[in-house]
Amino acid sequence: VEKEFVRWLVENHRATEAPVVLGIGDDAAVLAPSSLYFGQEMIIATDAISDQIHFDSNIHSLERIGRKALAVNLSDIAAMGCRPVAALLSIVAPSDWKSDSARRLFSGFSRLAKHYHVAVVGGDTNSWGGRLVVGATIIGDSLAGAKRPFWPLDGASAGDVILVSGSFGGSILGKHLDFDPKLELAAFLAQNYHVNAATDVSDSLSLNLAALASASGCGCEVMVDKIPVSDAAVRLSHDDRQRQTALEHALYDGEDFELILAVPRAVADAIATDPKLPEPVTEIGVLTDSRSIVAVDADGVRRNLTIRGYEH
Amino acid sequence: VEKEFVRWLVENHRATEAPVVLGIGDDAAVLAPSSLYFGQEMIIATDAISDQIHFDSNIHSLERIGRKALAVNLSDIAAMGCRPVAALLSIVAPSDWKSDSARRLFSGFSRLAKHYHVAVVGGDTNSWGGRLVVGATIIGDSLAGAKRPFWPLDGASAGDVILVSGSFGGSILGKHLDFDPKLELAAFLAQNYHVNAATDVSDSLSLNLAALASASGCGCEVMVDKIPVSDAAVRLSHDDRQRQTALEHALYDGEDFELILAVPRAVADAIATDPKLPEPVTEIGVLTDSRSIVAVDADGVRRNLTIRGYEH
Repeated sequence: VEKEFVRWLVENHRATEAPVVLGIGDDAAVLAPSSLYFGQEMIIATDAISDQIHFDSNIHSLERIGRKALAVNLSDIAAMGCRPVAALLSIVAPSDWKSDSARRLFSGFSRLAKHYHVAVVGGDTNSWGGRLVVGATIIGDSLAGAKRPFWPLDGASAGDVILVSGSFGGSILGKHLDFDPKLELAAFLAQNYHVNAATDVSDSLSLNLAALASASGCGCEVMVDKIPVSDAAVRLSHDDRQRQTALEHALYDGEDFELILAVPRAVADAIATDPKLPEPVTEIGVLTDSRSIVAVDADGVRRNLTIRGYEH
Repeated sequence: VEKEFVRWLVENHRATEAPVVLGIGDDAAVLAPSSLYFGQEMIIATDAISDQIHFDSNIHSLERIGRKALAVNLSDIAAMGCRPVAALLSIVAPSDWKSDSARRLFSGFSRLAKHYHVAVVGGDTNSWGGRLVVGATIIGDSLAGAKRPFWPLDGASAGDVILVSGSFGGSILGKHLDFDPKLELAAFLAQNYHVNAATDVSDSLSLNLAALASASGCGCEVMVDKIPVSDAAVRLSHDDRQRQTALEHALYDGEDFELILAVPRAVADAIATDPKLPEPVTEIGVLTDSRSIVAVDADGVRRNLTIRGYEH
C-alpha cells in the first residue's frame, strides 16, 4: 500500500505553500517559522482512533473515518484556544486493503484539513494483520491578537463560571463521526476574552469537567437543569435497552467534542450578550474552592455528581 | 489504562524545562520558540510500529518496544541532518494490558528520549480489542551552525558519491529493535559538510537508495563488493532456510536504520580522512544521470540491481 499511496500523495497532495518548506514524501516534513507562523507558542497534539472503538469500518466509510481522525485532533487545538497549521496522518491498515482505500481515507482527512487551512505535511502508512488504526498529529500556534497564548486545563479559579458550547449526549447516533470541531468559536473567544481554562469533551461532560476542576485544584457545582441536552440524547432515552435518562446521556456519553470553558463572572456576562459570538454558549455552573463535584437540580437539591464516561 | 497512566506521567514525567511551556496532561502540548529552539526550520515526523510487523509482543519486552517506537522516529531526524527536540507517544493497547504495562513501555521510550535530550511532551492512550500499536511523533529543528538547514531526499546530483553508515542485513537478529539512531554522526556531518541528500534505511538498502536516486532524478551505480555486510547477514546466510547470500541480506533486509548520504566527490574525500568523524562511513557508489540502478561487481560486471525490501 505505502509506496503507491505516497507516490500519489506526492504527485497530487504535496503542500508547498507557506509555512511548508518540505511536504509529504521525505523522511520528515519541514516547516518554516515566521512572524505569522510559530512566531509565538507552538501547539502540538496527537490522537489515534481505532476500529470498533471510535468507528466501525463495517458501517462507516473510509472518508468519514479519515475526517474523524483529523477532527478529534482539531478539537484539541480548539480546546487550547489556538489555531491549527499543519497535520500528519499515520495509517495502520488491514492487509486486505485495496489500493484506493488509503486514498479514500486521505480524501476525508484532507478535505477537512483544507476547510481549516491546515497543510497535510507528512505521515506514515503500514499494513498489518489487525484492524484499522488511524493516528493524526496536529501542529498549531497561538492566534494573532489572542488575549492569552493558549488555554490550559489547570487555569481555573474558584468563582469562575463554567460555559459549554453545543449540546450533549447521544453522539453515538452520528455526531461522534461528523462533528465540526469548535475552532471558529474558540478563535473568536481567544481573540476577545480572557479564558482561564478549557478542554473538549471526548470522554464525557462529567469526566472532562471533573478533570478541568481537579487539575485547577477546584471543585464545581453543576446546575444540571441548565445542561444543554441534545436531541440525540432524548432519542436514546426513549430506547428501553439504554435505561438512562436524556440527562444521564448528556453527562456520561462520550465524544461530544464540545468545549468546556472556565471564565471569570464578568467575562461570562460579556460573552452572553456579545452579538458577534459565532454560536451560543451555555452557563452550566461554577468552580468552587471545595474538591467535590456537586450536582444542583432545579429545586436547589444538591448531591455528589457521579463521574463516568467513555474511557477508551 | 489512560487515566491512571496519565496521572502517573504528570506526577513523574512532566517535562518543564525549555522549550516546554506545557507538557503532558493537557489537550495539547505547548513549546516555546526562541533563538535556540525553532529559530530555524522546524522538523516533524511520525512513525507507528505494530505487533507482529515491527516487533513481537510475545518475545520482546515492552521497554524495548517503547524504545524502538522512539528510535525509528529519531532515525528520521538523523536522516534529515537535524536535531530532535520533543516527542509525543501514542499507544493503542490490548484491552488485557495490566496497569504497569503502559509505564513499562513509556520507560523504554523516555530513557532513550533522555539520552538524546528529547522532551516527552504529550501523547494519547487507548485500549481496544486488537494488538499493540505504538505511534510516535518527533519534533526537531536545524542544528546550530549547520551547513544546510536539512537534508532532503531529492537533493542529489549525478556525480555525487553515495556514502553509508554502519553495515547492512540481518537486523531481524536484534538490531531492528536495539539500534542506536545515527544522530551523532548526522549532527557532525551537518555541521561540517555539505550533504546534498540523505535518507535512512527502513525498507532496505536497495529500496531506500533507489528512492533517493529516483526522487533526485538520478540513477546510480552501486559497487556491491563495497557494501558493508553485517555479521548478522553472514549468520543468516548460513541458515539454509533463508536461501540468500549475505550480500542479498544486506541489500534486501529492512530496518538497518543506517544513513544513506549523497555528497559531492570533494566532500566524500574530506569526510574519508576526517579524524573527528564519530564513526566510519563507507563509499558504495555514485549517482548517475541515467535512471537505472546498476550493480557493479568486483570484476566490473554490470547488471540491473533488483530492488526489493521489507515493505510494511
